[in-house]
Amino acid sequence: MLTVKAYASPSAAEPLVPTSIERRDIGPNDVLIEIAFAGICHSDIHTVRGDWGPQAYPLAPGHEIAGVVVEVGAAVTRHSVGDRVGVGCMVNSCGQCVPCESGNEQYCVAGFTGTYGAVDRDGTITQGGYSTHVVVVEDFVVRIPDSIGLDVAAPLLCAGVTTYSPLRHWGAGPGRKVAIVGLGGLGHMGVKIAHALGADVTVLSQTLKKQADALELGADHYFATNDPQTFAQLAGSFDLIINTVSAPVDIDAYLGLLALDGVLVNVGAPAEPLSVNVFSLITTRRALAGSTIGGIRETQEMLDFCAEHKLGAEIEVISAEQINEAYERVLASDVRYRFVIDASTM
Amino acid sequence: MLTVKAYASPSAAEPLVPTSIERRDIGPNDVLIEIAFAGICHSDIHTVRGDWGPQAYPLAPGHEIAGVVVEVGAAVTRHSVGDRVGVGCMVNSCGQCVPCESGNEQYCVAGFTGTYGAVDRDGTITQGGYSTHVVVVEDFVVRIPDSIGLDVAAPLLCAGVTTYSPLRHWGAGPGRKVAIVGLGGLGHMGVKIAHALGADVTVLSQTLKKQADALELGADHYFATNDPQTFAQLAGSFDLIINTVSAPVDIDAYLGLLALDGVLVNVGAPAEPLSVNVFSLITTRRALAGSTIGGIRETQEMLDFCAEHKLGAEIEVISAEQINEAYERVLASDVRYRFVIDASTM
Repeated sequence: MLTVKAYASPSAAEPLVPTSIERRDIGPNDVLIEIAFAGICHSDIHTVRGDWGPQAYPLAPGHEIAGVVVEVGAAVTRHSVGDRVGVGCMVNSCGQCVPCESGNEQYCVAGFTGTYGAVDRDGTITQGGYSTHVVVVEDFVVRIPDSIGLDVAAPLLCAGVTTYSPLRHWGAGPGRKVAIVGLGGLGHMGVKIAHALGADVTVLSQTLKKQADALELGADHYFATNDPQTFAQLAGSFDLIINTVSAPVDIDAYLGLLALDGVLVNVGAPAEPLSVNVFSLITTRRALAGSTIGGIRETQEMLDFCAEHKLGAEIEVISAEQINEAYERVLASDVRYRFVIDASTM
Repeated sequence: MLTVKAYASPSAAEPLVPTSIERRDIGPNDVLIEIAFAGICHSDIHTVRGDWGPQAYPLAPGHEIAGVVVEVGAAVTRHSVGDRVGVGCMVNSCGQCVPCESGNEQYCVAGFTGTYGAVDRDGTITQGGYSTHVVVVEDFVVRIPDSIGLDVAAPLLCAGVTTYSPLRHWGAGPGRKVAIVGLGGLGHMGVKIAHALGADVTVLSQTLKKQADALELGADHYFATNDPQTFAQLAGSFDLIINTVSAPVDIDAYLGLLALDGVLVNVGAPAEPLSVNVFSLITTRRALAGSTIGGIRETQEMLDFCAEHKLGAEIEVISAEQINEAYERVLASDVRYRFVIDASTM
């Protein structure tokens, strides 16, 4: 066992505190990563605060991990000491079901093993990336191309692939009109990636506040959803809408923005069920779909794509002692667009 | 103007009565069809009874029309006197929008002109197929292959194409597992067509009552949805589910039956909004979609497919004076599987 420094929640009601956690001994297929940066995802906050169900505490969150390999197990073939690598939302899956065999580990029938707060194969509870080191099986570790800084790469492991995967799956590209709903951590990567894929990109955000940013990030158009005219003006416009907003929205209003055969993809999920008028779907053969992160192969493909197109996240690097303050700012939407913890400050 | 015999509703509250209605003079692009048979669709009942909004009365419903061309306009090129032809749910569309130009007139941006109860281009209200004759622009008239009887062909014009279109669009075929929810007018055609396309077909019906019928129609499997075990046993099974039931169902339960990338397509629409848990969608990249009838080109393709595979509807032929009784039996689900009116009895 390795004892390493971390920031963890002692309970759902308390702020994160500096502590130490255990990492398993390096097995034959494991790599030990020295973490350089870890992104703060909104879901970290929901999870540690128990919004999505009870947790085992103490719990160190973090599933946007970038670092360097410092030790490898005897059977490791894919990574070497010194490699720049990343770990996202998954650290294992069954490897044998149809989704796993097709490279869609995120849809593992048995459920993938989450990077934190999940029961690992050895029965322990996984601990995330708000830490100095992590031990992960090599198949769930991806290579970070040299041209991407580890700080701006960290958020790609969740926010990047969560938007890249549906954009690719539903064919965003030249001649396709894509809307990104919400310009936060996910949304800002959605804009960058959709633009790099060659799509015509529209940002739909509550107010005009982020318009300049959105155009800078690569959006072609920007509309405020608090203006009712937006929904009339854009009716039937889009081939693909990626909804990054987890709060409940008027889904029929957004379905109305889709053209024939258009798809509205939720990548966030409100806790409450959505209300959907079936006429919104049948009148223009529209679909309401969902997508979560991406497979391991696809995560590597996304990182290579980002390197080729010189894309990284827009970040604000913080020290570990600023994590709790950063949480409050995330909840207040006061971040452009991702906090990244410098793990050397743990 | 032509005055022709018909059965029409005098008001939302009264039964249909024998009457006469006006058909327009045959324009250069029109064909005059002597109707042989007209199917009774559940939506005829909803419409004439005002369930879907107020109507202009008297109203003759009917959008599953099979007959023979008896006169053509001067500019008609696609049909000749003596041709066996059909008319479905549409008698016109704008012809200029993206859906119309791609052969998807059913998704015309301006809205297609319904075969009955719609405002026609000349400002009159269209009257449907419970009648002896109808005048329709040639582009909305399809050819019925000689090998299909006009009686069993009539229901193909709505029930046939409404199931054929989504089965084709979402790729039903060999190696694909397809479920048909509901075994009524639409469902029984869905089973026949999905089977002919080579898919592995499961019928999901409320009780085991129609099991023998379903297997006879071509289903490979049959499950009763009033047995809670059905939903556990079939979890994650299907690539495509066609829901032909208009009544509200537990949509999350049906979404749970979809495999990775599976699609649940509603071809009926309950008046009340559906409640959808987004986690049902994102956990397996599922989609909830809608589809309505099919385009004119696709309707012809469906008729040719049915001829090739020797498919027609299962019908009970009735005389015009039995229409009101038939309505009650449709509402009581007491029909296997479509009533067809013999127009010679008008």
